[in-house]
Amino acid sequence: MTTSASQTPDFSKGDGLLPAIAQDAATGEVLMLAYMNQASYDETVATGRAVYYSRSRNKLWRKGEESGNVQTVKGIFLDCDADTILLKVDQIGGAACHEGYSSCFFRQVTPAGLKVIGERVFDPKEVYKKK
Amino acid sequence: MTTSASQTPDFSKGDGLLPAIAQDAATGEVLMLAYMNQASYDETVATGRAVYYSRSRNKLWRKGEESGNVQTVKGIFLDCDADTILLKVDQIGGAACHEGYSSCFFRQVTPAGLKVIGERVFDPKEVYKKK
Repeated sequence: MTTSASQTPDFSKGDGLLPAIAQDAATGEVLMLAYMNQASYDETVATGRAVYYSRSRNKLWRKGEESGNVQTVKGIFLDCDADTILLKVDQIGGAACHEGYSSCFFRQVTPAGLKVIGERVFDPKEVYKKK
Repeated sequence: MTTSASQTPDFSKGDGLLPAIAQDAATGEVLMLAYMNQASYDETVATGRAVYYSRSRNKLWRKGEESGNVQTVKGIFLDCDADTILLKVDQIGGAACHEGYSSCFFRQVTPAGLKVIGERVFDPKEVYKKK
């Protein structure tokens, strides 16, 4: 029940990958959750741009490297166990989600099933033309 | 690049444990991140109170069962990959963190090290007297 004394995320947990939440610094909207390893965290701190680790591609994921929708980091916060990272960011382009929504959490669970509650900011087909 | 068609979280990922973010429904403050398995998710949906799965104790964790600081669920959202859950909650007692802060993310990363930016709502020694 004591606060971790470490001054950095504890990457010894989670096989070296920790969840990182991106929250819009201005609106408070939770934009997405991704993962960071030590290298992506270090690059995020050094550059002020959010860099994650893609579990599917097994490499650093410089958010926005393809879409241009980078995240400028306004603040980095650690939780009490130092095993989750919270980034407050400015989301360039207004959309964090590759589906074109401002937030990846654009669907609400309702008794009738999932309901889309977000509005599309961009058309994924236009932004990811190479796909 | 397609939206998952599933209507529920995809617990086939992450060895059956998915990250769940709790956000204050009124203020937008990100309170904590914990994990859910299918059973904890189902109980959360059924009861309207946040139930997580404790990885350290290997059992369901009915948030607030010891402190009384339960979370009343106001909305449940899934991300584009259906592998992260966002709960908008009313945090009873005003503090989600076992350290007595409203949010577990009460420390900011600064060039001089971690800086406590939250204010304590309760004294953990008083709330967790059995510990």
